[in-house]
Amino acid sequence: MRDELPKPIELDGEMLEKLSYGPGGLMPAVVVDEAGEILMVAYVDAEALRRMGESGRTWFYSRSRKEYWAKGETSGNTQDVLAILTDCDFDTLVIRVRQHGAGACHTGSYSCFTNPVTLGGANAGK
Amino acid sequence: MRDELPKPIELDGEMLEKLSYGPGGLMPAVVVDEAGEILMVAYVDAEALRRMGESGRTWFYSRSRKEYWAKGETSGNTQDVLAILTDCDFDTLVIRVRQHGAGACHTGSYSCFTNPVTLGGANAGK
Repeated sequence: MRDELPKPIELDGEMLEKLSYGPGGLMPAVVVDEAGEILMVAYVDAEALRRMGESGRTWFYSRSRKEYWAKGETSGNTQDVLAILTDCDFDTLVIRVRQHGAGACHTGSYSCFTNPVTLGGANAGK
Repeated sequence: MRDELPKPIELDGEMLEKLSYGPGGLMPAVVVDEAGEILMVAYVDAEALRRMGESGRTWFYSRSRKEYWAKGETSGNTQDVLAILTDCDFDTLVIRVRQHGAGACHTGSYSCFTNPVTLGGANAGK
């Protein structure tokens, strides 16, 4: 069980102004755990980022439901935000989190990325 | 110097048909190295995936230039494709690569994700 609430995260105002949102005013955010393992990818806009800063937990915008959602609001598998990075084009985020509960995926998996698109691995043994 | 060309990668046809592309017929692809470190995020469509399979190297579609591009075609910092995964929604890829040269970023950095959006790290010490 969790005893502590996550703390608010202070965002860098100058960096926020540099961010370049894509279609629908959204950009993808790659969520990784403390070890750097990729958990999921979801979308954020400026308001989702504001909510993340304020709550210290991950908030996203659902393109299908057209609404904001807090990760874990139904499952309890919340994510405390540890750090947010952006890339050289300022159009993608990496969000480092502390994952609570069984994992990030609604299927019950720890990571959402469990489906191989490649067969074998032709360059793996090089 | 590189002596070997990357080998073609066989893609899973059934999985390819499940993929759900987003705005512009594109989906984001998170490129990670063999240790799982995130190098960059770029966009792919079915044709970019076909070229990746055929060449064994990463190919993307540039939303700004509206053209296909092979990673490293100007810098020489090519990426051999080792494996491709998709997530529970089939709308994002993780591409595991062997990165050649200095790194993935056009700035000269190994990773494109070098810019902090968060100040300090309020939850880091919990």
